[in-house]
Amino acid sequence: MLETLALDVSLKKKEYKQAIKPLDAGLCEAQRHLRQAGIPVLIVFEGWDASGKGTAIGRLVHAFDPRGYHVHHVHSVSEQESYWPPMHRFWTRLPARGAMAIFNHSWYRQVLDEAVNSQRSPTQLARAYERMRVFERQLTDDGAVVIKFFLHISKEEQAKRFLELSKDPAYSWKAGAAERQRHEQYDRYVDHIEAMLRETSVPRAPWTVLPATDKNYLNVKVAETVMAAFQRALHPVENVGPAAMPEKEPAPGPLDKVDLSRSVDKDTYEETLPRLQKELCRLQHLCYVRRKPVVLVFEGWDAAGKGGAIRRLTWDLDPRGYAVIPFGAPEGEEAHKHYLWRFWRSLQKSGHFSIYDRSWYGRVLVERVEGYAAGEEWLRAYGEINAFEAELADFGAVVCKFWLHISREEQLRRFEAREQTPEKQWKITEEDWRNRDKWDAYRQAVSDMLVKTSTPAAPWTLVEGDDKRHARLKVLTVVSDRVREALERPDSPMQ
Amino acid sequence: MLETLALDVSLKKKEYKQAIKPLDAGLCEAQRHLRQAGIPVLIVFEGWDASGKGTAIGRLVHAFDPRGYHVHHVHSVSEQESYWPPMHRFWTRLPARGAMAIFNHSWYRQVLDEAVNSQRSPTQLARAYERMRVFERQLTDDGAVVIKFFLHISKEEQAKRFLELSKDPAYSWKAGAAERQRHEQYDRYVDHIEAMLRETSVPRAPWTVLPATDKNYLNVKVAETVMAAFQRALHPVENVGPAAMPEKEPAPGPLDKVDLSRSVDKDTYEETLPRLQKELCRLQHLCYVRRKPVVLVFEGWDAAGKGGAIRRLTWDLDPRGYAVIPFGAPEGEEAHKHYLWRFWRSLQKSGHFSIYDRSWYGRVLVERVEGYAAGEEWLRAYGEINAFEAELADFGAVVCKFWLHISREEQLRRFEAREQTPEKQWKITEEDWRNRDKWDAYRQAVSDMLVKTSTPAAPWTLVEGDDKRHARLKVLTVVSDRVREALERPDSPMQ
Repeated sequence: MLETLALDVSLKKKEYKQAIKPLDAGLCEAQRHLRQAGIPVLIVFEGWDASGKGTAIGRLVHAFDPRGYHVHHVHSVSEQESYWPPMHRFWTRLPARGAMAIFNHSWYRQVLDEAVNSQRSPTQLARAYERMRVFERQLTDDGAVVIKFFLHISKEEQAKRFLELSKDPAYSWKAGAAERQRHEQYDRYVDHIEAMLRETSVPRAPWTVLPATDKNYLNVKVAETVMAAFQRALHPVENVGPAAMPEKEPAPGPLDKVDLSRSVDKDTYEETLPRLQKELCRLQHLCYVRRKPVVLVFEGWDAAGKGGAIRRLTWDLDPRGYAVIPFGAPEGEEAHKHYLWRFWRSLQKSGHFSIYDRSWYGRVLVERVEGYAAGEEWLRAYGEINAFEAELADFGAVVCKFWLHISREEQLRRFEAREQTPEKQWKITEEDWRNRDKWDAYRQAVSDMLVKTSTPAAPWTLVEGDDKRHARLKVLTVVSDRVREALERPDSPMQ
Repeated sequence: MLETLALDVSLKKKEYKQAIKPLDAGLCEAQRHLRQAGIPVLIVFEGWDASGKGTAIGRLVHAFDPRGYHVHHVHSVSEQESYWPPMHRFWTRLPARGAMAIFNHSWYRQVLDEAVNSQRSPTQLARAYERMRVFERQLTDDGAVVIKFFLHISKEEQAKRFLELSKDPAYSWKAGAAERQRHEQYDRYVDHIEAMLRETSVPRAPWTVLPATDKNYLNVKVAETVMAAFQRALHPVENVGPAAMPEKEPAPGPLDKVDLSRSVDKDTYEETLPRLQKELCRLQHLCYVRRKPVVLVFEGWDAAGKGGAIRRLTWDLDPRGYAVIPFGAPEGEEAHKHYLWRFWRSLQKSGHFSIYDRSWYGRVLVERVEGYAAGEEWLRAYGEINAFEAELADFGAVVCKFWLHISREEQLRRFEAREQTPEKQWKITEEDWRNRDKWDAYRQAVSDMLVKTSTPAAPWTLVEGDDKRHARLKVLTVVSDRVREALERPDSPMQ
């Protein structure tokens, strides 16, 4: 692919000026329309050292209102960044709807360098590319425009440019030792770049490989490609196929099998609880030493006892090693980005416990039932969530998910008790009563969620919650068991 | 101070249980009231290694709803963190109004370690403590509760605890090489801790030094101290003094001296502009190599040409090395935190240009004129802003601030032109016309701002804006000159 690309194409100054002027005007206008339409844009610039990525970005953004884009320069993974799953540092940099993120290097850089230096097995490489396809698909499914450029120059041209750069101390660092070493490996890079382009060129996020010898030619091609992608986003071809329809699932679901009569007597509870808490504290410290990430998700009916269960769980934990992260409706920045953004952002680093009091499952629970998410959005979310949790598990995380289940009658008793106890009144609101009226719709949503998102790497645990003592001990036992098991396994090579 | 503290105090289990129960209930209730009142809380735990900071925090938070606090473990400054001014990593971790941030180690840790290891001169140390007093004063002025604990144990007790920890691999890392080295330096630490406590114990953010030999005693004292601070915050003594009044300043201000007739002819402009742009590109690269931070603030009347000036300024800059950061009204998280939080958070790292299109000066402009900030808030802001910019300058940043000035008549011409040009109509809104009606109030606010916040380290530049060519060249010239000057000075020892 790269060998066959004509590198000697060029444009004269006059032709260039004629071509670029209308493109600039068009891009400027398109930026405004994209902002109005709330469409986020990601533009990736990969390419050889000294191929002119920075200059190309600089020229492209002349067309744009500088308040509407942000340029991200991506380095190799730092030690800090290595404490999170690989895509964390890109999720946290997503543009808001209507804004643009331009990446000088991107999620491809690290993988490519490691491939060339044989730091990844073929299986690991295949999984890395799969992660990227998933990432880009999640973004384009959400309406984002993803444009990817690879800027190509010959090895001779690169040598010439390095020589030029080395003449001025303001620029000579751009042709430093690392760049020169990669120059030596040019041919090895060619093979791996071709594989990368092949593996990750998909219809909605294709690669555009451009000859970068002549700046004028390059700038016009970049502008044309971006313009074409903007046009497609602003004037999509109507989809005439039938819309995806929510499925009906009237058959008995997993909730029907929950035995809510299970209970634990007070003596057993008071004897068992402190023992489990101490044990979990010790396991937490071992997770810290081993840099093992632990992700705990708590979902459940209002008043099912999520707060109480989390409190007993964290009772003896070192408070420096966990965070309880509550989620309500998205607000501010959160509402302007992909719904998974705030969850990626809130992940604690490896070795710590991330404890979610409500979570990304809001997408298929409250957002589905209340209609905040469109049908196609929440239907798509099952797969998106499974992919997200698979990335966590791949990274070595222990993922436990709890549905705290109570009967409708028990919920009523608890609501009434809250209303009658002055220091608990703040816990009960009009909204809780409104949600209660939609019990059946929520029950259907919960059933679907349990069926569609229980995976071997991230299974759901149904917690019988009518008896609080039983529920709390069960949560502690499951977390301890899963963490202990994970610590007993040798570290996966993915970490 | 430390020598005279009785370390042999203790509480029996029964006394402890009697004391802690009502404190827990009180703290739990107080947390709710603080949340309702929107009061942010910062609790600092400093103390010897193995003095039990983690355990004390763990016990304290038993009283709290875990959704209302976050525990931050503060490490030494990482390489990444060193690219920002020292307080950046704490500003970015501020709790929202009504929430709590609990710090295990804090802004004091690094300074103390460096003092003991003689890495700071007495002058640098004095400035570091001044920064901390300023930081805490800015928070308490904003209504925050700041509580600081130092947990004290004897050298012998520390040795005993290290021995205990070393017996279990889950905990032995807590008594590692660094901890043992600090143990050897115990006496040197005593001197510097006493100086630190003396320098930074202020009425609204005092230190509480507690003997930490007996856990029961410690836990009760921590809870009592926090409870007392919460009570003071929830039931403040009425301030009966006269409220601060906005000052009148009818005398001619700096805006009266602006010569709006200044202009540049087209030929001079087209010859000078590209030269200045190329030169600034080179300076930007030198800033990158030298890790010099550059902070540029653009304020001005609506339609004064901020956007156009920024565009010409960044025309030839490497897009990877600057960010244009626009600010409107705070939203989401921003609205729940100290108003300086979002500006601290948006600072680009050293070596990059942070270009603000509107800025923290909104506090003394739009927030003053529209009444979004109370009189005492915007009056206090002049000092807060000067302190903020002094921290940037102290860190080695070049700080340039531009007020783009146009006459009222010129503004009218531009508004009308925008309304008549289809592709510019989006630039003019009802709000622009409303702001225009308040010209005199804004003019007074601008005058006050220029007088009160022009400092040697961060001076204002008044830009005559009726002629756009003149304005753009002036901005480019001032930025280039200031950056060049800064690069010619030897690096300050503070960096």
